[in-house]
Amino acid sequence: MASPFAWRVMLTLEVKGVPYESKLLEFSKEDHKSSGYLRLNPRGKVPTLKDGEFVLYESLAIMAYLDRKYPDPPIFGKTPQETGQIWRSISETESYLGLAGNKLITAIFFGKGLEKPDELQAAAATMREELSRLDTALAHSDWLVGSQVSAADIALFPLIQLILRAASKDAAKSLNLGLLPLGQSYPNIAAWVRRVEAIPGYEKTYPPHWK
Amino acid sequence: MASPFAWRVMLTLEVKGVPYESKLLEFSKEDHKSSGYLRLNPRGKVPTLKDGEFVLYESLAIMAYLDRKYPDPPIFGKTPQETGQIWRSISETESYLGLAGNKLITAIFFGKGLEKPDELQAAAATMREELSRLDTALAHSDWLVGSQVSAADIALFPLIQLILRAASKDAAKSLNLGLLPLGQSYPNIAAWVRRVEAIPGYEKTYPPHWK
Repeated sequence: MASPFAWRVMLTLEVKGVPYESKLLEFSKEDHKSSGYLRLNPRGKVPTLKDGEFVLYESLAIMAYLDRKYPDPPIFGKTPQETGQIWRSISETESYLGLAGNKLITAIFFGKGLEKPDELQAAAATMREELSRLDTALAHSDWLVGSQVSAADIALFPLIQLILRAASKDAAKSLNLGLLPLGQSYPNIAAWVRRVEAIPGYEKTYPPHWK
Repeated sequence: MASPFAWRVMLTLEVKGVPYESKLLEFSKEDHKSSGYLRLNPRGKVPTLKDGEFVLYESLAIMAYLDRKYPDPPIFGKTPQETGQIWRSISETESYLGLAGNKLITAIFFGKGLEKPDELQAAAATMREELSRLDTALAHSDWLVGSQVSAADIALFPLIQLILRAASKDAAKSLNLGLLPLGQSYPNIAAWVRRVEAIPGYEKTYPPHWK
């Protein structure tokens, strides 16, 4: 599985044009539990950013740090109102689509929770509701907040990709979750996905083992 | 129950010295599901901020908006490093102490989950681990990040208060969760709580029905 959280950081770096070196951790080799990695990030999660001597983890924190250090282009808004709306969108992504999506992702990629189809159907209902809301928001706007790509888009995009990938697996197909095909159910989200994919450098952020 | 999320916003306003009018919603009267409130916040949750014609919900988003609009004193850091560390602390609060604490709070105040003592014990173990980590961090520093109160402290404080209140109820006492007394198990957190309580205007943020 690709980490949606690491993907956020790489997208941020590409949007800002900041050069970086990416190190892929292999979960099957328990790279994230090595003593060297745990010294950088005691929770053993990804991503972790090392910028000179400064080390930081938690994807949203890294995005906020990068925006403050490399302010152009701004991804957390140009006005207090945009800043608020961007963080609102991120909070909603985390609390609603994220929690529900995580149930599906965990079930499909790790086999945990497949024995509880009712919970997966409830999660799918939440996902459909959130995707409808997003599709409506994207009907008259290229980006979630403001006139350019922001942290709201960057925080959401990898989660959407992971949910779509999980939903396309055989184990999910038999559940009839009603999430696919994206372009049919949520055409505005599908168009927005293509806009994110057109960001220069996007292909460098794409999970290598998905190709 | 008091909303830890509304409390965050009121603490932010007091720290910044911004005048505000607070409207208490009574959940028992379903104030948060009234059509007037749902027009402001379609999710029907608290808090919602109305600043002139601008309406915003999600507590962290409101805090970010207020910090951008009323930058003095800054609560999201003075340097990129502080900004990153503050958001890291907030992300950790949400993902670890918050998710575990919510299980206890929901069980004690709403009776949901009391029939699963194993899950509550697991949540308590996570809470003890996170509180130990915080207690260590506060051993040599008055505030979680930097030399003054920040959004990291403001995001954490109401959650700590709510966990302590839940743990002190009879239904929790019999579970022997090992969270109380705070001053004995986590003396540095207890001292930090007193520092937050000493912020001018703090008493105006205290939930009225807790007095």
